[in-house]
Amino acid sequence: MELHPRMNQRWLLTTRPHGQARESDFTWDEGPVEALAEGEVLVRTVHLSLDPTNRVWMNEAESYLPAIALGGVMRGGGIGVVEESRNPRFAPGDLAAGLLGWQRYSVSDGRGLSKVTPMPVPFTAYLSALGHIGLTAYFGLLDIGKPKAGETLVVSAGAGAVGSLVGQIGKIKGCRVVGIAGSEDKCRWMRDDLDFDAVINYRIENLQEALRRHAPEGIDIYFDNVGGRILEVAIDHLAMRARIVACGMISQYNNPDPHGPANLGRLITKRARIEGFLCTDYSGRALEAFTDIVQWMQTGKLHYRVDVIDGLKNAPRALDRLFDGSNTGKLLVRVSDEPAAAVIPTVSSGFLN
Amino acid sequence: MELHPRMNQRWLLTTRPHGQARESDFTWDEGPVEALAEGEVLVRTVHLSLDPTNRVWMNEAESYLPAIALGGVMRGGGIGVVEESRNPRFAPGDLAAGLLGWQRYSVSDGRGLSKVTPMPVPFTAYLSALGHIGLTAYFGLLDIGKPKAGETLVVSAGAGAVGSLVGQIGKIKGCRVVGIAGSEDKCRWMRDDLDFDAVINYRIENLQEALRRHAPEGIDIYFDNVGGRILEVAIDHLAMRARIVACGMISQYNNPDPHGPANLGRLITKRARIEGFLCTDYSGRALEAFTDIVQWMQTGKLHYRVDVIDGLKNAPRALDRLFDGSNTGKLLVRVSDEPAAAVIPTVSSGFLN
Repeated sequence: MELHPRMNQRWLLTTRPHGQARESDFTWDEGPVEALAEGEVLVRTVHLSLDPTNRVWMNEAESYLPAIALGGVMRGGGIGVVEESRNPRFAPGDLAAGLLGWQRYSVSDGRGLSKVTPMPVPFTAYLSALGHIGLTAYFGLLDIGKPKAGETLVVSAGAGAVGSLVGQIGKIKGCRVVGIAGSEDKCRWMRDDLDFDAVINYRIENLQEALRRHAPEGIDIYFDNVGGRILEVAIDHLAMRARIVACGMISQYNNPDPHGPANLGRLITKRARIEGFLCTDYSGRALEAFTDIVQWMQTGKLHYRVDVIDGLKNAPRALDRLFDGSNTGKLLVRVSDEPAAAVIPTVSSGFLN
Repeated sequence: MELHPRMNQRWLLTTRPHGQARESDFTWDEGPVEALAEGEVLVRTVHLSLDPTNRVWMNEAESYLPAIALGGVMRGGGIGVVEESRNPRFAPGDLAAGLLGWQRYSVSDGRGLSKVTPMPVPFTAYLSALGHIGLTAYFGLLDIGKPKAGETLVVSAGAGAVGSLVGQIGKIKGCRVVGIAGSEDKCRWMRDDLDFDAVINYRIENLQEALRRHAPEGIDIYFDNVGGRILEVAIDHLAMRARIVACGMISQYNNPDPHGPANLGRLITKRARIEGFLCTDYSGRALEAFTDIVQWMQTGKLHYRVDVIDGLKNAPRALDRLFDGSNTGKLLVRVSDEPAAAVIPTVSSGFLN
């Protein structure tokens, strides 16, 4: 029952990009938020999650989600605060996460929107270690990769949001972890702070030689976030019965002429497999992952980094950071203030229940 | 204790081919077989098995076996009759199978040589349905592909030695089977004699359209014998949680510029996997496969075709038949006469024990 309408701000997708998305592919739009109908809920976006997969959604071809409609709000995951509700599942003040879109306010019938239980963690964790990123790393590695202690795990984009968690979970499970990234800063972080056993800067090192040196008995698990030529080289170094976890192929998303690995025959001689997955398949098992992840965070075994860009206006430019290699850790856009009430200063057990 | 030495005939590999192997890459050689040392066994080759993988062994790079040494006998699987033995595991008259090589007589210490129990089947079955081909089709489909009744199974080289068995076993397991081959004759055989549900002649049909038509709900299992562009198109049509059985990639073996599928990202959105295997991994479970296969043969549910080329001299030219698409079914070279004693005319159960 508001007296003056809230003003929305949003980015519409108005041109389908070829190659890298540009700011000019989007159009800034402002206008009042309409009053809620029965069953609807209004969420104010706090953080948007910028993920490589966002670029895939912009293409005309359907992927695991339909293509974003031209002229529609740019799709994006986010977390926010319920400001008004005519939906019995949500009350004002609730935290809610889902595909809020690149906008300050979103109105929906609540489908696809999850209530988030406040946890004694930094607010940024909800869209990283304790959100879809944590789910992806945890189940991708454990369920698809099936690591055994003593195995060699190689992770590309090892300083990325998912990769950095994968490497650390690999260490917790007793693997030898080799991280691949594209800058000295990222390599230093993986080696010094995340305690990876070896790091490779693929931009300055010869990847074939580096893998020969750091995975001399072959790669048991290759957790692939990049696809393309790095995937191809990794296939050259597979150990017997290796598992490649196909998580993402960021090197291909902007690539009008994608590169397929020409050495898939090695899957036969090495009795190896490539398997894809999506974290959404595991949303029913989130508690399982988050229970472990919170415990690992509390005992100092798991660290994550966020790269928070301030202001919805900056979202299109922020997306570039995923593809030009300039961000480390989880990329977020801060759209509005965190709710004070969501920050619980004490750590208690059982809060996930 | 022979009085006159046997004369051997053999093909040596003397040039490593680039692209398709030519007869000029081989050199014909004749000479006496030396007397056996203690522990050795002499086998007269009856049939040689010509398989696409033979071409891979000719390359310089090691695959799952070392490269064939230049100047050495061309490697090849075969079955023959023990003519002399100073090895306690073998007696004259025994059937023995293994990597006999492209030669009339082979002398070995018996390692890698298996004794073959005579079965009430045509002699050609030992190197096809009841040999490595049967093992490959049976375990590749059942263990790697894990078919469920009602699923759509697509098999490339569907009129080939392995593919034709895979499709028939798929039918036995209740799958809808679509066979891909490169000639009308092969397509007719798959459709009319093997009872596949649909066939595609990839040389004259548009494979994208044909798969859209024959696998409208997507491919649950793609059994891949060819790799390359057919694999790529199949990936475009995967159903959710599809399995690609990577059995062979014959289109790539002669290809100096192999083609990698540029659409592996679909493995992610479809939660699909590609998995390689070798039939040798299953040799310990051969009885399991052969028990089923013999029963299916006896009840008319499983048919196989052989393409027998007469004379060791013709082996190099016969190899071409695998790559130019001119053979249907299992390609064998008949080097010498079948032993009369091995042909058991009556069918009995339990002979595999």
